[in-house]
Amino acid sequence: MEPRISIVTVAVRDLDRAAAFYEAMGLRRHRIRDGVAFFQMGGIIFALFPRESAEPDAGVTFGAAPSAVYLAYNTRSEAEVGAVLAQAEKAGGRIVKPAGRAFWGGWYGYFADTEGHVWEVAHNPDFPIDANGNIALPA
Amino acid sequence: MEPRISIVTVAVRDLDRAAAFYEAMGLRRHRIRDGVAFFQMGGIIFALFPRESAEPDAGVTFGAAPSAVYLAYNTRSEAEVGAVLAQAEKAGGRIVKPAGRAFWGGWYGYFADTEGHVWEVAHNPDFPIDANGNIALPA
Repeated sequence: MEPRISIVTVAVRDLDRAAAFYEAMGLRRHRIRDGVAFFQMGGIIFALFPRESAEPDAGVTFGAAPSAVYLAYNTRSEAEVGAVLAQAEKAGGRIVKPAGRAFWGGWYGYFADTEGHVWEVAHNPDFPIDANGNIALPA
Repeated sequence: MEPRISIVTVAVRDLDRAAAFYEAMGLRRHRIRDGVAFFQMGGIIFALFPRESAEPDAGVTFGAAPSAVYLAYNTRSEAEVGAVLAQAEKAGGRIVKPAGRAFWGGWYGYFADTEGHVWEVAHNPDFPIDANGNIALPA
């Protein structure tokens, strides 16, 4: 296994509602196939796929939200953290933890999407972000 | 929100077991802090974080595995799909769906990690992968 994740999929109960939420977050939906929403996220793909399609495809029944596999969006400044959380609330999500100081020194909060899955929004100066949005662990 | 995911975290019950699994999958653990396992995955970070730390941090209780947020590893060839599934089984995971033809035309299967979270392993010639491992939706 090379060190990569190709696609992050959220198996959703309401595809249209979830797609509208992520579009309102500023992401652009690629309409290359019905019944799935794809978003190009730098070098990876983010997908929304109905649970009723995803579960028989994998042959599993997914657990409830919030999911123990969760996502983080790292910002370029502390001020951006609150702005992204506010945008998520306006888009139909929910602020789970308002912006505040993290135990590891940064500034962060959490929102839940329309399916209840959480995203951490964080400014962590120890993990630099380049112009293309790529993030790196300290050497 | 710019189109990126910075960190994908799996909240785990057994950090050492999960970290050993992903190391046996060929990933290199960065030891920059105790109580968390980080892996650099191209331009994003993959993290394993104990559930007992992650849940109070976000202020939520995560649902059971398998998670409705799940990951895909896309391969460069069909033959690689079976090889990655076999590697996952040898590393202490479980093959959930053996390699076979996908309804969308590619070749794919699923494995579960030591926490029960599923990864799709897929060869999809419609989504090209560059030398750095970045994947792209068709234009």
